[in-house]
Amino acid sequence: MTARYDFASDNTAPAAPEAIEAFVAANSGFTSGYGTDPVTARAADLVREMLDADAEVRFVASGTAANAVSLAALCRPFEAVLAHEHAHVCTDETGAPGLFGHGLGLIRLDGPSGRIEPSSLATALAQPDVSYRQPAAALSLTNATEYGTVYSAEALRALIEPVKARGYRVHLDGARLANAAAAGFDLKAIKDLGVDLLVVGGTKAGMPPTEAIVIFDRELARRFDARLKQAGQLPSKARFYAAPFIGMLGSGGFVRHAAHANAMARRLAGLTPFPVAHPVEANGVFVEMGDETLSRLHASGWFAYRFLDGTVRFMCSWATTEEAVDALGETLRNLK
Amino acid sequence: MTARYDFASDNTAPAAPEAIEAFVAANSGFTSGYGTDPVTARAADLVREMLDADAEVRFVASGTAANAVSLAALCRPFEAVLAHEHAHVCTDETGAPGLFGHGLGLIRLDGPSGRIEPSSLATALAQPDVSYRQPAAALSLTNATEYGTVYSAEALRALIEPVKARGYRVHLDGARLANAAAAGFDLKAIKDLGVDLLVVGGTKAGMPPTEAIVIFDRELARRFDARLKQAGQLPSKARFYAAPFIGMLGSGGFVRHAAHANAMARRLAGLTPFPVAHPVEANGVFVEMGDETLSRLHASGWFAYRFLDGTVRFMCSWATTEEAVDALGETLRNLK
Amino acid sequence: MTARYDFASDNTAPAAPEAIEAFVAANSGFTSGYGTDPVTARAADLVREMLDADAEVRFVASGTAANAVSLAALCRPFEAVLAHEHAHVCTDETGAPGLFGHGLGLIRLDGPSGRIEPSSLATALAQPDVSYRQPAAALSLTNATEYGTVYSAEALRALIEPVKARGYRVHLDGARLANAAAAGFDLKAIKDLGVDLLVVGGTKAGMPPTEAIVIFDRELARRFDARLKQAGQLPSKARFYAAPFIGMLGSGGFVRHAAHANAMARRLAGLTPFPVAHPVEANGVFVEMGDETLSRLHASGWFAYRFLDGTVRFMCSWATTEEAVDALGETLRNLK
Amino acid sequence: MTARYDFASDNTAPAAPEAIEAFVAANSGFTSGYGTDPVTARAADLVREMLDADAEVRFVASGTAANAVSLAALCRPFEAVLAHEHAHVCTDETGAPGLFGHGLGLIRLDGPSGRIEPSSLATALAQPDVSYRQPAAALSLTNATEYGTVYSAEALRALIEPVKARGYRVHLDGARLANAAAAGFDLKAIKDLGVDLLVVGGTKAGMPPTEAIVIFDRELARRFDARLKQAGQLPSKARFYAAPFIGMLGSGGFVRHAAHANAMARRLAGLTPFPVAHPVEANGVFVEMGDETLSRLHASGWFAYRFLDGTVRFMCSWATTEEAVDALGETLRNLK
Repeated sequence: MTARYDFASDNTAPAAPEAIEAFVAANSGFTSGYGTDPVTARAADLVREMLDADAEVRFVASGTAANAVSLAALCRPFEAVLAHEHAHVCTDETGAPGLFGHGLGLIRLDGPSGRIEPSSLATALAQPDVSYRQPAAALSLTNATEYGTVYSAEALRALIEPVKARGYRVHLDGARLANAAAAGFDLKAIKDLGVDLLVVGGTKAGMPPTEAIVIFDRELARRFDARLKQAGQLPSKARFYAAPFIGMLGSGGFVRHAAHANAMARRLAGLTPFPVAHPVEANGVFVEMGDETLSRLHASGWFAYRFLDGTVRFMCSWATTEEAVDALGETLRNLK
Repeated sequence: MTARYDFASDNTAPAAPEAIEAFVAANSGFTSGYGTDPVTARAADLVREMLDADAEVRFVASGTAANAVSLAALCRPFEAVLAHEHAHVCTDETGAPGLFGHGLGLIRLDGPSGRIEPSSLATALAQPDVSYRQPAAALSLTNATEYGTVYSAEALRALIEPVKARGYRVHLDGARLANAAAAGFDLKAIKDLGVDLLVVGGTKAGMPPTEAIVIFDRELARRFDARLKQAGQLPSKARFYAAPFIGMLGSGGFVRHAAHANAMARRLAGLTPFPVAHPVEANGVFVEMGDETLSRLHASGWFAYRFLDGTVRFMCSWATTEEAVDALGETLRNLK
Repeated sequence: MTARYDFASDNTAPAAPEAIEAFVAANSGFTSGYGTDPVTARAADLVREMLDADAEVRFVASGTAANAVSLAALCRPFEAVLAHEHAHVCTDETGAPGLFGHGLGLIRLDGPSGRIEPSSLATALAQPDVSYRQPAAALSLTNATEYGTVYSAEALRALIEPVKARGYRVHLDGARLANAAAAGFDLKAIKDLGVDLLVVGGTKAGMPPTEAIVIFDRELARRFDARLKQAGQLPSKARFYAAPFIGMLGSGGFVRHAAHANAMARRLAGLTPFPVAHPVEANGVFVEMGDETLSRLHASGWFAYRFLDGTVRFMCSWATTEEAVDALGETLRNLK
Repeated sequence: MTARYDFASDNTAPAAPEAIEAFVAANSGFTSGYGTDPVTARAADLVREMLDADAEVRFVASGTAANAVSLAALCRPFEAVLAHEHAHVCTDETGAPGLFGHGLGLIRLDGPSGRIEPSSLATALAQPDVSYRQPAAALSLTNATEYGTVYSAEALRALIEPVKARGYRVHLDGARLANAAAAGFDLKAIKDLGVDLLVVGGTKAGMPPTEAIVIFDRELARRFDARLKQAGQLPSKARFYAAPFIGMLGSGGFVRHAAHANAMARRLAGLTPFPVAHPVEANGVFVEMGDETLSRLHASGWFAYRFLDGTVRFMCSWATTEEAVDALGETLRNLK
């Protein structure tokens, strides 16, 4: 029996038709390289339109690199980034921020269901600036969070304001920004929140590998292409990273597909007999399940990861079918 | 008038049909991530078969990163890599080896037409190992070279042997390995040359962005995925970087398309009235041309770069047509 | 009133007479640089003699750099070092391991009074080797610990053995090795424990700034001077870092002075009316004290730090006098 | 026969009496650490007074680290520093700028006798800002130069002005600033030249290991102590790096000793029968000498290095005696 990866992650899914069609459509004729081509220009326009923001946009291959390069742009090596202790940059990037950021530190904040607790941030911001510890210089946020919850613009503003008041910078990891948008988060609100650098996830939103870096603070854009090139993230055939965004943003598929993923997560949450550990606001369902049960789940053919908080994570995507959700739901009920 | 980029680089071309078809074909169903999927396994098999080598293979997004990560694996920060002074790692990667290699040095060797002069290598190897300079620890080779010439296996062996005799490592940048193969370089000979890490170029060979890292020394493969992940080069949807190799290697298109590119270069070399500066053995033609003439060429709509040695470079690719070559040839004759 | 720093740290003390005399004695005539001089050779002999080990020895300026350079030598950037969560490398070096180690990770272990709990180590070692987290490659130990406790050789062996069994490396931070020795830790036992790199603290032992790096695994010594030079830790006038070790080791002052410091700590522990939080085995006394009391202590002229675990730390040194201990003791009693 | 290192470098000399006396004098009582002590404050005042500048001053152990940390403060990893091809940062620091600067590049300029040729700088500044090469962000100057020549304030201004006009930064390596001052370079002129960071050499000026970093642009001083701490250059017992400056600056010995060293160089230049290759403006004499002759010189007991330009270098210091100069002169005459 082959394992089924439908719920293992939102990057186990194939790419959505709109993304692939745009990818194929972009494969025509000769064009200039390194992001100077018309496909890239069109995709950047669509990102700006979606965000209602006059920002610089770059398309890169890797979300891990996009995050790490962004943090390196916001924080010097002897400084640190404030982030949720379970943020992707803290737990799932093999220390990429430290490599691209040359040793920059991560100050881990806590808070329920992946959202930073404001008091935890306040405590960190109140730390004295001593020479023997890496002082904070930036805040990294994630929306939707690693636990499938979604910050409102107001909640982000409450976290960002004290950070900007100190002159620190802000990074927003939007690997699942589409899911946040589908859950009601207003993408056009970002531009006024004080975010300096935003990563808009393409891969988890149903594209082949591609991510957009949005540079709200134009001063940061100076020589950003050299920064990306040194980091191995300035693609020569850039059109292939831009095109999927054209397919998905131009068609509305970006948010529409995410809405489907979110709906599948809610459907699954309704079917699982195991306690659901976190609010199901985006495309993930986290349930409490013992090791023996998880083994039996795996034996039944469904693959799922035990997550950082000890729960078992099921991720839905644009490609998750009602049939798969229902089949998994039935398996789960049988495991109980 | 829109500029024509047909000859500006071999990455201005679109991707070949075989590559795109395989890419689209891979976009089916859920699969596991980070290179553990069957598409990646199949592509790796094809690379091993092409090289007749029992090596580890990884597929990554960026040639710049593939080279830099490789050099970082072969050389410590206080050591240096020997390379041709005009090698891509020295001149066109914005210091990526230094970023990924944490300050590793580059010792620039000379030699005509992009090939390292053995005496230049010998001089460098004879330098005493002093604490105040970065001593050599690895040799980086490029085949085909930046100047469209091709090393024979024997020529590579002559450069590699004294390097391996000292216990140093060897990296081969094969961004244009397909062109070298089409020019007669035996890909199956590489495994016996002492190369530790090879980068097989996909992008310039007519694929959408993808490169293969081949790890001949299995000891180097330990935790290589962690190395790649930290470097932002372990793609979650890995199938999209592996699939184009299936399309191109499985069909023979990899070398066949390169042979076409090489033939187009030879055709162009036969048409240009300007002195050709380097042997045309692969897919590039370098001609001597003054600034005023180059401006007129640009004004005529054909874009080409002035290269490191002062010549003007014309690159051919799988997509270069005879018509385009002839049209450029006529333009060049009119410029003379 | 000037604050008294007698107990603020063991680096607030001046240097011991033997160290200064040797420093001054070394200041004679011309000599070769970068550690090739006879003073350095003599000091290295004394370190080897003290450790009864045929090891390479280097003298450097900074303990922070000595530790960080050592970890960089034992661990690649995508790997991690296991260390007590309150080890100096984790908490007091502003991320130096990440800078010198290019993003290497730190896996924080717990354990009472600064000593790693074997079960905490075992849990970390049992973690699967996944590509998205930095896997352990080395263990960093500290003796005496940050909390003034001392590992026995047996205790170190119990921590080191499972680490070496996996092929990982071991670093021993001996910033307060003299205090450990004075507490009964057998310095000649280190060579058989599996330690690869040891830093022998000079500064906290009563010398002007100097630390010795001891390289037990000779393979690690290859090009170590280039490593140090790049790190700014290969001094041209090396004799000035070596000489204090001659003064202190040749005279027995190294351990004798540390014994005095330890005795002063015990004396202080006997005088303080505040609960002593950790066993007083070396030269530090950690007491439980509220903020208001600490403020009054500071107001009385005695400076002391609140430490990582929330206790207030008093450090003794070779220069701590009985009078100072008694005066502080009286102040503390009055604060109660 | 023991080799004589009198002329091998200016760091083979012992430390001057004023420096050692101040060092010993500082060794009294307990004091606060990490540069917050009164000795450091006094030494910083003296440096400011010498430069007539209201600048921040830090005392560190290593000139290599001081330079590298400074360049890291002025230049991002994907940018480059303009420097003379034979500057210490380019040739004698084992790639330290790349380590501390995380891969920053060095753009090598030429010019006779260690001074940057303005036209070479102009050519570099005229390079287009392309993403695939590290663009310049700072200029590094050295006074006195590696070849014993001295820039006038006007000559420095001519190099600095076009650099500052582009918003780039300026670093001045003053490892031999004392020798430049003794040759007539006005130290009080530096503050108006546009230098952002200056390293004032203590070691080569006759001190035990110590260097001063002078931060003219106060904005750069923010969190500089954290930067230094991470780099292993924030000494706990800082007084020992500050004190020698008190001894040498307070007594006038800093420039007076350098004047002696310069005079000894001129004396030697007058005695050597070998062609002198560079103007003798500071404390070095560079002569043209074949390998066989150099071997005989070494056999006669005098050690000297063949330098980067192929000449043989003789360095004088505060401790160089007339007798030694005359003895070397006679040996040289006998070798001819």
